[in-house]
Amino acid sequence: MAATTETYNDIPLDQLFPQDKLGWRGYVEWEDRPERKRIASEILKTKKFTPIPEFQFVPLPKTNPILVGHRWKEYHEALGLKNIVDFSWETVQKEKPGMIHLLDFPYNGETPRPELVSGKITDNKWHFVRNHGGVPDIEEDAFELEIGGLVPTPVKISMKDLKDPSKFPQEEVTVTIQCSGTRRIEQIQEYPGEGDELINAPWGEGAIGTAVYRGVPLKKVLKRACGGVLPECKHLEFVGADTYFKKGNVLNYAVSVPYRKVRANEEVLLAWEMNGKPLPKIHGFPLRAVVTGYIGARSTKWLYKINAIAEPSLAPVQAQEYLYFTQQIGKQNAKYSNGFSIQNMPVSSAIIFPTDKQVIIHDGKIALQGWSYSGGGNWVERVEVSNDGGHVWYAVDQDNMTEKHYHAWRLWKIELPVDAEGWLEFCVRSWDSSNNTEPTFVRSAWNWDLHVTSSCHRIKIYSVNKSKPATAARLAEIEAKGVSFNPLTMPLEWSLESVEDYLKYMRKHPREPLN
Amino acid sequence: MAATTETYNDIPLDQLFPQDKLGWRGYVEWEDRPERKRIASEILKTKKFTPIPEFQFVPLPKTNPILVGHRWKEYHEALGLKNIVDFSWETVQKEKPGMIHLLDFPYNGETPRPELVSGKITDNKWHFVRNHGGVPDIEEDAFELEIGGLVPTPVKISMKDLKDPSKFPQEEVTVTIQCSGTRRIEQIQEYPGEGDELINAPWGEGAIGTAVYRGVPLKKVLKRACGGVLPECKHLEFVGADTYFKKGNVLNYAVSVPYRKVRANEEVLLAWEMNGKPLPKIHGFPLRAVVTGYIGARSTKWLYKINAIAEPSLAPVQAQEYLYFTQQIGKQNAKYSNGFSIQNMPVSSAIIFPTDKQVIIHDGKIALQGWSYSGGGNWVERVEVSNDGGHVWYAVDQDNMTEKHYHAWRLWKIELPVDAEGWLEFCVRSWDSSNNTEPTFVRSAWNWDLHVTSSCHRIKIYSVNKSKPATAARLAEIEAKGVSFNPLTMPLEWSLESVEDYLKYMRKHPREPLN
Repeated sequence: MAATTETYNDIPLDQLFPQDKLGWRGYVEWEDRPERKRIASEILKTKKFTPIPEFQFVPLPKTNPILVGHRWKEYHEALGLKNIVDFSWETVQKEKPGMIHLLDFPYNGETPRPELVSGKITDNKWHFVRNHGGVPDIEEDAFELEIGGLVPTPVKISMKDLKDPSKFPQEEVTVTIQCSGTRRIEQIQEYPGEGDELINAPWGEGAIGTAVYRGVPLKKVLKRACGGVLPECKHLEFVGADTYFKKGNVLNYAVSVPYRKVRANEEVLLAWEMNGKPLPKIHGFPLRAVVTGYIGARSTKWLYKINAIAEPSLAPVQAQEYLYFTQQIGKQNAKYSNGFSIQNMPVSSAIIFPTDKQVIIHDGKIALQGWSYSGGGNWVERVEVSNDGGHVWYAVDQDNMTEKHYHAWRLWKIELPVDAEGWLEFCVRSWDSSNNTEPTFVRSAWNWDLHVTSSCHRIKIYSVNKSKPATAARLAEIEAKGVSFNPLTMPLEWSLESVEDYLKYMRKHPREPLN
Repeated sequence: MAATTETYNDIPLDQLFPQDKLGWRGYVEWEDRPERKRIASEILKTKKFTPIPEFQFVPLPKTNPILVGHRWKEYHEALGLKNIVDFSWETVQKEKPGMIHLLDFPYNGETPRPELVSGKITDNKWHFVRNHGGVPDIEEDAFELEIGGLVPTPVKISMKDLKDPSKFPQEEVTVTIQCSGTRRIEQIQEYPGEGDELINAPWGEGAIGTAVYRGVPLKKVLKRACGGVLPECKHLEFVGADTYFKKGNVLNYAVSVPYRKVRANEEVLLAWEMNGKPLPKIHGFPLRAVVTGYIGARSTKWLYKINAIAEPSLAPVQAQEYLYFTQQIGKQNAKYSNGFSIQNMPVSSAIIFPTDKQVIIHDGKIALQGWSYSGGGNWVERVEVSNDGGHVWYAVDQDNMTEKHYHAWRLWKIELPVDAEGWLEFCVRSWDSSNNTEPTFVRSAWNWDLHVTSSCHRIKIYSVNKSKPATAARLAEIEAKGVSFNPLTMPLEWSLESVEDYLKYMRKHPREPLN
C-alpha cells in the first residue's frame, strides 16, 4: 500500500504533524500532545499495512538490505512523515555505507566480521546500529535537554552549557554497547519466536560494538542543575526525539533506568562524543544516553527529555518489550508482567573467525578469533574454546586478549590444536569477574522474544588435517588434477582407489567372516 | 547441454546401442559387451554435462519433482537412449502419480505421510521407489533369467517355468524394504556430505515401505535348476536390466549378497508379485530380487542375470557406493576400502505425525504415530517416545503396534502426556529383538555418504496446553477477536495486559529490590 491520503479535516497531511521546534527536523512531539496521538491513531486505523514478514520460518534473502521495513515506512507515510524515512536512509548511506544492512527502516545495521575484531575500539562507521524509528536531524545550537518530574528544580539545558566543563565535569568511558538481539539468528534457526511490528532483526554476532564516549555523568547533571532528585524518584525516564509506533499508537521512544544505576558515578553518561568525534547523526547526535553494562535499548539516542519518576517507565519499549520470558511462555500466555525486563547484559561471547560451515585445510592447528563481554559492571576474566562441542576446553592466553575495562568487551585469539578430521563443532564460553558463565545450548536459553542469545556460541567447521598422510596424499592428488577441494560436496571425478589396492585390503579384511 | 550428436563412425546414435533382445525395450547389455562400454565412455568424454546440484547447502525447492536429474538425463541422451528417460517418467505418471517426487530421473519417489502409516502393508502405488537408472520395459513372455558362474549347471529360466509351482516351491513373505538414505535430510541439514553423479536423494522419513512379495527362494532355484553352487561360490551377483553410469563408464546395475544369506531359506526371494498383483514396472517387472533385512539396493529390479562368484561383486554399487564411513573419513581421505559396505539395516524409527514445527493445541495429551523397523532378521520389540528430548521415555503399548513379522516394520501410535508449553522436542527410539537400539543424535551417526540415519528421530513441536487457565484465557481472547492462532509468529494486535493488571503485579513483584 502507498498511503497518499492528502488531507485530514482539510489540513494537508504533511502539515498535520509539523516540526515543533526550529532546527529540529524529523522530530514530532507526541508525549506532550495527546490530541496529536489521538488523530494519528485514528488515521492509522483507516489504513492497511504490509504484513510483518514471516522471515523466521525461512532463510534470510542474500540481499543488502536484507530486510525492507515496508510496514514501518508506511506508518510514517500515513502520517505525512515520509521525510523521516528518506532522511534516515540518506544518513545510512553517508555514515554507514559498508554495514550489513539487516533492516533498511528503522535502520538496523550489523558490523562486518573483519571490522568487528579489528581492534578493541569499533570505528564509528562500523559500530552497529539498532534504531527504533527514523533519524531526527537536529541542529546542536537549537537543541536543549529538558529535565523534569520528581526533581527540586526542572531545567532546560543547552548543549553549550552541558559541554561547559566549568558547569559539569566531563568523563571519557570505554563502553561496549550490545543489542539484546545479538546472535538472535541462532534462536530463530532453532525455534521461531515472536514476530513484531518492528521486525525483530535477525542479528548475527555483530550487534555489539565498543567506543570511547565523552560526556557528563547524569548524576552530576541532576545534582548541579536540578538540585538532585526528590526522595520519591527511583527511576529516570529517557525520551528520544524519534517517532515510535506500537499497536496503533504513536509515541516518542522512551525507556527508563533505576536511579540507583544513575547514582553510580560514571555508569550513566550524557554523551556527545564518540571516539573523539561528534556523535554521528545515526548514533544520536547531538546527545544520547550511554548506560554502561545495560541492554543497548536504554542508551537513548537524540535524548531531549529526562523525567525523574517513581516507578519504571510504562512506555512500551520499557514495559512491553525487551522482556525475558521463561521457556513455557509464548503467544498462548505471554503478558507484560510474566517476562522480566532486560537491564544488565549477562556474559556472552562469539567466534568471529573461522565462520560457520567453513572448510579448513590445516596442519593440526586452527586459529580462532572472537569477542567476549559481560555487562552489569562485570568484565571477562577467562575465555575458553572447545574443538569437540564442549567436552574439552582450552583457555585463551591472557596475552592474547585485549585489556580489561569495567564496561567493555575483550577481543581474543587462540591457536586451537585440532587433530580430528571431518565436521567438528567449535564453541566458546567465557567466565566473568563474578564467575558467571554461559548456558550450554541455545535450547538452554531460548525465549519467546528471542533476546539474549548468550549460550555458548557454536560453529561447525570441516577439518582437513594435512598432517595426516592419507589426507596429504589426497590433497596432492587433487592438486595434480588441477581441481579445487571446494565445493566440499562436489565429487571427485576419478577413481578413489585402484582395484588392486582395494582387493588387497578387502582380502585381508573381508566384509563377511570366513566362518 | 543437449546431446544431439547424430552419428558415431557413421552409425546414427540411436542405432549405436540397440535393443538386444526382442520384447526387452530400454535394456542395453553392457556387461557382456566391452567394446560397447569403450565406445560409450569415449562418447561421454567428449561432452559437458550439467553440474551436480549443491542442494546440500541450501533448502530444497518446494516443487514436485523436487529435483531434476539433468545430468543423468544428459548421459542417456548422449548415448542415444533418450527413450529410456521418457519411458521412465511415463511410468511414474501411470504407476506413481501421487508420490513426493524427490528426483524425476532416475526416479526417486517418497511415500506421502498419510499413506506411509495407513496400514502395515504399503499399497503398490504408494510404496517408495529408489531407482538408479531408467525403467526397462520388458515383456514377460520374452524374459528369461540367466544363472551362471560358479554353479554346476548354468541355466536360463523363463518366467513361465519360474512361476510353475511344480518346478519351484513358492513363498509369500511380508518384507519391509528400506533405502539406506531414509531420513538422510537430517544428516544433510546438520552437516553436508558427499555429492554424487546420481544425486543423493534428500529423503525424509518415507523411503521405506512394506509389501507381501510372492516368488521363489533363490536357494531353491539354485538347487533345483543349477544343482546348487560350487564350493568356491561365496556370493551371488545380481545384475539388473537398467543402465547405470559411474565416472565416465556405463554399466548394468549390479550388486551381490553372500551365499550364506541366500541359503537361509526364504531370505532371498525372486519375486514377481507384490501385494497380490504383478510387480509394477517401476518396481522391477517382470522379476526382482527381494533380499530381506538388507539395504534396498540389494533387492535388484529387472533382475535378468545371477552370477555365482567367489568374492563380493566389484560393481560400483557394491564396492564403491553404499559405504558406511567413520566420522573422520570424507573427501580428504575416503577410499572404497575404508568404508564398510552396508548390508543388513539396523534398528531405526520415525515419528510421522505430528510433523516437525507443528503448532499443537491440546489438552494435555498429544497423539503420535510412526514406524519402527529393524533388518537382519531382527524385529522391533519395543518403541519408546519422549516429550522432553530424550530424558524421560514412554513405551508404546503392544496393543498399539502392528503385529510382528520377521522381516517387516511395526507401525505404532501413542497418546503422549504433555504438560509443558512452548517448543518441545519429541523423539522416538526402538529396541529390536537383539536389544539393539538407536544412536542418540544425528551427530552420533553422521557419515560422509549420509547413509543410515538411524539416530533417534527428533521433531520440534510448539505445545499450547489449553488445560492451563492462562492459555485457555488467551485462546478465548483470540477466538473472540476472530483471528487465528497461526501463524505462530504473527503478533497479536491488541494489548496483552491492562495497565491496571500490569501495575498490580509489578508493584507486588517489582523489577528492582526496594532496598
